[in-house]
Formats: sequence, structure tokens, C-alpha cells
Amino acid sequence: MSLVIIGSVAFDTIETPAGKKERIVGGSATYAALAASFFTRPGVVSVVGRDFPRSMIAALREKGLDLRGLRVKAGKTFHWHGIYSQDTNIRTTLKTEMNVLADYRPVLPEPYRLADILFLSNLDPEVHPYVLQQMKKKPILAMDTIRYWIENKPEALLEAIQQVDILFVNDEECRLIAREFNLIKAGRSLKNSGPRFIIVKKGEHGALVFGKNFVFSVVAHPCEDVIDPTGAGDAFAGSFLGYLDSRGKFGQREIRKAAVYGNLVASLVIEDFGLAGLLKATQLDLVERYRNFKKLVYF
Amino acid sequence: MSLVIIGSVAFDTIETPAGKKERIVGGSATYAALAASFFTRPGVVSVVGRDFPRSMIAALREKGLDLRGLRVKAGKTFHWHGIYSQDTNIRTTLKTEMNVLADYRPVLPEPYRLADILFLSNLDPEVHPYVLQQMKKKPILAMDTIRYWIENKPEALLEAIQQVDILFVNDEECRLIAREFNLIKAGRSLKNSGPRFIIVKKGEHGALVFGKNFVFSVVAHPCEDVIDPTGAGDAFAGSFLGYLDSRGKFGQREIRKAAVYGNLVASLVIEDFGLAGLLKATQLDLVERYRNFKKLVYF
Repeated sequence: MSLVIIGSVAFDTIETPAGKKERIVGGSATYAALAASFFTRPGVVSVVGRDFPRSMIAALREKGLDLRGLRVKAGKTFHWHGIYSQDTNIRTTLKTEMNVLADYRPVLPEPYRLADILFLSNLDPEVHPYVLQQMKKKPILAMDTIRYWIENKPEALLEAIQQVDILFVNDEECRLIAREFNLIKAGRSLKNSGPRFIIVKKGEHGALVFGKNFVFSVVAHPCEDVIDPTGAGDAFAGSFLGYLDSRGKFGQREIRKAAVYGNLVASLVIEDFGLAGLLKATQLDLVERYRNFKKLVYF
Repeated sequence: MSLVIIGSVAFDTIETPAGKKERIVGGSATYAALAASFFTRPGVVSVVGRDFPRSMIAALREKGLDLRGLRVKAGKTFHWHGIYSQDTNIRTTLKTEMNVLADYRPVLPEPYRLADILFLSNLDPEVHPYVLQQMKKKPILAMDTIRYWIENKPEALLEAIQQVDILFVNDEECRLIAREFNLIKAGRSLKNSGPRFIIVKKGEHGALVFGKNFVFSVVAHPCEDVIDPTGAGDAFAGSFLGYLDSRGKFGQREIRKAAVYGNLVASLVIEDFGLAGLLKATQLDLVERYRNFKKLVYF
């Protein structure tokens, strides 16, 4: 199988109650691909500026990322600056500098056009058709989104949702898109709009999965020190899809396990700033976390 | 085994987004005892006024409650009036009329003084010693509390917590008592202050249990129509203790299952106003809910 991830590769300036980091590497595609790399060798489609550190590109390659789709362009890398409150579910964007991402239209390298799973991570929904027409076979299509598109391109977003197999949303986005406060009703309503699976990420409260004739609910891996929640949602989606790619199956059993791994890999992310948690974790760490998680939830 | 529950039996006037009910029967002891009655025959210690309906006393007896400890006194029954926001985790008290509960000191009927499990449900912590000295053997002691005591009698509360085997708190109370925002740290910290088990009720997000050398985390039973959350926490505690009483054991396995049943019985409560959900549910309903819950969470 093969997984291709389209999204941002970025610099983040992050302020949390645990400290401040300036211009560290982040981005939705980076988090998702690193998370997926526990299970598979994901392709990345994105763009960075010439200011992007070569050392980081080398580090990502070493982790097994296929970067043939990462374009380096004259100009500056996308930069996001945000601050988190003590309740780390709440974040405020202080600055967004689009830079080379401003007029970027993702172009997939030839081999990526045969991908089995294609993940459009918070891409402008109006750009989805441009990407999809490049595919040479119909992939399992997954997407994530952000509040910005829900508020600014609601119609294009709903159209995009109808096309996908797997939709990732957080609880707030789920309620906003479905226009329904009750999360179970909202999830079911999104499910009925087209996708085969709706994955609702609830941060410290775990995740809910809505599939055909089943709902799966799973708690989060408990975390005593939330250092930086940036990228946790992207990592959830990346490891979820990476696991499915490694299994080559999309049954209920695989989907449930994928959500558990999504949770566990996301928990690695929040225990350190930026990509540090993902970069230092090994597959053995993840296996141990899975074993501990089983002990946490059995009854 | 035997379980005795001390708390309020009350009239509630409740406003939720689903509607308004005036002066329906509620109270922490009522919810807890009805919830426990799925598993055992709980004794109730409380006081009501002469305005309390005889028909309700008959209905509670029919459900298996032992009401020898329920005193009927000249005067009016305790009355609480509250309103819930759409996010039903948030509630505002509009009025509290203590009435016969104002100067009430719980007196246990002779047979209750040999109870195996004693549950002090949101009692004034300064009254705990008065109750405990009535016991003729040392029971498994469980307590719940409310924000009011945390804010107004913090020292007596901490002393009471040190005495108990099982402490029920909701997530907000857990953070307040432990003075720690991270819920895992807060739960561990309360655990270290004395009780054998800390049960953190998280409403729609399930529950966390802290025991010796283990943490148990469980999601809530998903609910598409939250009608009235009043009493859900009391019902959680009541069914938790009722289940333990029926097992006669307090090992990790029993504690985990007790928390699952706590969740499930609480979910019965919120699906209707007041006691209606508990009064109409049968043991078979609960068995079916347990079976569905297993399907919800397995992986």
C-alpha cells in the first residue's frame, strides 16, 4: 500500500504555559507524515522556502518520509504564531504569514498519482478537485479541515466532504459543520452526508468514530504534562492512516485500532514542543504505550 | 453485604434546553439509592417534610429501597431550583430552600449501624464524625462532595477525605481540591491524600479511576438526547457502590466494572427529567446497555 499526505510544512512560533519556542519546524503535513512513519513510508506534498533548514529535511528523510513531493521555492516558509491558554484546548492565532504557501497549488509527482490513500490535510476545499484530477486511480480519500474553511468556504467544504471516504474533525468543527450541538447527533449527521468514516478528535477526551452500523469511542492516553498540543490532531490523522496503509484493510477492526494508534501517537506529540516527541519516539515506545493503554481501559 | 446512603431527598425545579419541570422529586440520596437498587437493597437516611408525596415513597419502596432511615418531619421538603445551559455541564442555581434539611443531623436506625458500605453523599463534612461515631463496625466509607463545601469548609473537607476509602468528585471538584489543573496529576494527588480509590466523574467524557498501582479510564455511554443531567453524578456513585455491594469485593476488577455500571446508570438518568429514567428502567435494560457498551469500546 502507499499513503500520500498533502498539507503544510511550516515554521511555528508557539507559546504555551510550559514555555515559548520561536520558528520551530511544524506544519500539518510534517506532523501527519512523521506520525504515519511509525507504520509506513508516507509521501509528502508541500512547499517550503529557501529558509527551511536542510538538516530538518535530512532528519525527516531519516525517519522514512518520502519527500519527492516537497518543493523548495524562492521565498520564505509559511509561519504560524499561536498562544495556548492553560486549558490547552483553547488557542489563539497571533500571526499567520502565508509566504510561499500563498499561491501554492499542489502538484503530485508521477508515482504519487497511484497512491492507495490520499490525505488532504486542511487544504483549501476549492483546491481538492485540482488535486484529485491528477490521480491515475481512485484512492481512499481522507481529509481534515480547519475552522477557517468552515467559516469562509462552507459550500466548497460540504462538497469536498461528500467526496471523501474518511473525514477527520475535532469536536468543535464537527458541531459547526453539522450545525448540531450534540456530538453524537452531529457525528451521525456528517456520516450521513457521504463519508464512510467520521473521526471526531476530542483532544484530552479521546476520539469518536462513526462508521456503517457502528460507533467506536475511545479515551485519550492520559498525559500528566501537556507541553505543546500543536500538531496533535495532524499526528492523530497521520498515524490513523499510516496504520490503515500498513494493514491494507479498512474494516471495522482496523478502523478501531487505527483510532487507538491515532490517540497514542498524538499523546507522544503533546509531551514535548513541536516535533520533538515524534522525532525521538521509537516503534518500541509505541508498542509499550499500546500495552499500557490496554491496561488503562480494560474491564 | 449492605449499603447505606445518607444525603438529600428533595424537590427540584429544573430548567434545561429540553423544558421545565416544577417541584419534581430529586435529591442526592434518592438518585444514588435508586441507582444502587439495580444491584442491592440500599438503606436511605434523610429527611423530608410533610409535603413529600406518599405515592413517591411507595414507588421508591417498590424499587427495593429500604426507607427506615427516612424521617418525615413537620415543615417543607428541601427545594432546589436550577437552570442548565445548552452545554449541560454548566448549571446555575437560582434558589436553594433548605427547609427541613436546615438543622438536620442524620441518625442511623439501629440495623444500619452494621452497614458494610456507608455513602455520605454531599453531606456537610463537619457532620461526618457525628455520623461515623454511630457505626458499630468500620464500614467501607465513600463520600461525594459539592463545590459549596470545597469553598466554604475546605479544612473539614480535607480531613473528611483522609478518612474515606472511596472519594467521588467531578473533574472540576478534583482540580479545585487538588489545586492542580492537570486532571491526571490532580487525581493522583487526591489518591495520595488517603482514599484507596478516587473516582473522577467527567460527565459526557466518562470517568477516571485512580487506585493503588492502576488508573482506569472509561468513556461515557453516548447520549443523543440529554434531557436533564440532574442527579447523574449521584446515580453514578450509587450504582458504583451498589455493584460493589453486590459483589462483596473491592479488587481492581470489581472497581473497574463498578465504574462502567456507574456510567451506564448515569446515562439512564440524563435521558429523561428527574427520576423518570431510573424509575422506568429494568435490570434487563441495564444488561442490554452493558452489552452495547462493550461493542462501543472494544478494539
